[in-house]
Amino acid sequence: MDIKHYLEQKRQDVDRFLESIMPAEDARPATLHKAMRYSLFAGGKRVRPILAIAACEAIRGTSPLILPLASTLELIHTYSLIHDDLPAMDNDDYRRGKLTNHKVFGEAMAILAGDALLTMAFDLASRLELVNGLDPRAQVQVIQELAAGSGNVGMVGGQVADIEAEGKDIDPATLERMHRWKTGKLIRASVRIGGIVGGATDRQLDHLTAYAEDIGLAFQIADDVLNIVGTREELGKDANTDASRGKKTYPTFFGVDGSRKLAEERIASAIAHLKDFDRKADPLRELARYITARKN
Amino acid sequence: MDIKHYLEQKRQDVDRFLESIMPAEDARPATLHKAMRYSLFAGGKRVRPILAIAACEAIRGTSPLILPLASTLELIHTYSLIHDDLPAMDNDDYRRGKLTNHKVFGEAMAILAGDALLTMAFDLASRLELVNGLDPRAQVQVIQELAAGSGNVGMVGGQVADIEAEGKDIDPATLERMHRWKTGKLIRASVRIGGIVGGATDRQLDHLTAYAEDIGLAFQIADDVLNIVGTREELGKDANTDASRGKKTYPTFFGVDGSRKLAEERIASAIAHLKDFDRKADPLRELARYITARKN
Repeated sequence: MDIKHYLEQKRQDVDRFLESIMPAEDARPATLHKAMRYSLFAGGKRVRPILAIAACEAIRGTSPLILPLASTLELIHTYSLIHDDLPAMDNDDYRRGKLTNHKVFGEAMAILAGDALLTMAFDLASRLELVNGLDPRAQVQVIQELAAGSGNVGMVGGQVADIEAEGKDIDPATLERMHRWKTGKLIRASVRIGGIVGGATDRQLDHLTAYAEDIGLAFQIADDVLNIVGTREELGKDANTDASRGKKTYPTFFGVDGSRKLAEERIASAIAHLKDFDRKADPLRELARYITARKN
Repeated sequence: MDIKHYLEQKRQDVDRFLESIMPAEDARPATLHKAMRYSLFAGGKRVRPILAIAACEAIRGTSPLILPLASTLELIHTYSLIHDDLPAMDNDDYRRGKLTNHKVFGEAMAILAGDALLTMAFDLASRLELVNGLDPRAQVQVIQELAAGSGNVGMVGGQVADIEAEGKDIDPATLERMHRWKTGKLIRASVRIGGIVGGATDRQLDHLTAYAEDIGLAFQIADDVLNIVGTREELGKDANTDASRGKKTYPTFFGVDGSRKLAEERIASAIAHLKDFDRKADPLRELARYITARKN
């Protein structure tokens, strides 16, 4: 299969759906909606929604039910980027080659745009009419995955651990735990949401979860490597920022080559977890490979 | 009925429930959980959860199903206070007589504690086992009310309108719209959630909604009046801050007495909307009266 084509198709599906449900720029309160849209439509790759879609397809093939629920993951991801970039947090000026949200709209609006995007994820996920045909019990489970993946022992907890680790002498185990929360839990939720909507058996959901945990870590290791070897142009933001902040990353402990090897081991393990799945899981397999090959 | 006793009982129920589900202070990530607990257990009156409980009781009498879902409203309310107090927003040093969250834990942690409390509301609301016995479709509707009440055309939208109105020459209609979003929508959601869990008919839900819209506005008008006539000791925060910020409030347009009269008219209207309800709705009626009588 042609993974680039697949990614492009699904990205367009997600963007079209998000465009269809986001309030227009002039809808009241206009500044808020402008700020939300600015970051949501800043050229994201939609990795998390696509993982959810691919996981759903791995079980039941193409289904219209997954697109709205998958898209909520991008709202959560976008909110987390806006808040991470704030002066009180990472204080970043650029993201995806554009000024960060607070640089354009100010800090107050950036905080509120993040809050509103997070809330909108749950708003969308709880609209009965958008996923008409899905068992409401499965819909509640999807919302539970979303919330658990992004909360105090998920993404937000990981961000706290990340802030607290800055400049400290942490060990690789602490680094892995931090990443398992900060990026891993939402990626895990993405794949599980796809599985739940796809009607996975408990056993299938376990395999998908193991797959997700492996690619989540590989994704983060690849990100750490890119932060060092990527150019500003490729990344759309400053390169090599981790080192200048005294941040411990995978390359700190294992070097660039050692980290790449670690990521590849995880990818192989992820794909092995899919051995009982048929060809409908090929996009998931290709997505895993794509993670370590990407340039941004 | 003794509304003071009722409020105290229900407040204790909510506090006990929140205590039972909140991670301990030393549970990882400890700083985050400390920050979340600091504001959540800072002596809030639990008005929104109590409104949900009272609305549920108005329909079906006492039910164990409502407490977990009602309590999520306090998580959302607390997050909104933490973010509102931030330096980039209202820049408040005190709240309920205690230092604000960012004053104790720093800005980054306050932003994240707010994010985590908001997310935890949806985490709790989507746990199937906590509300075992509730139709999952009703559970999805509750989550929809929570999200719609607190999002871009709810509480967050109202906060944006509030910020944008500061120092501007707005008219009473703009002021009312701002409040309808900023505090009204979450109060509306609180009452509707109670109704939904209580199994209200469409007609009953309409009456409850009309009641909620009236008390939501009365609540805000009373708050504006308290900001002027309340003492620092009663309020637990600085008094008369609206005027010093050039904020237009109800007393700006209608004076203190005129505003009190407006609030009382709303309360009377709220109670009139409950005319088809029996004595099980007495707590809702008394709650409405309590709103204009309170001192903080």
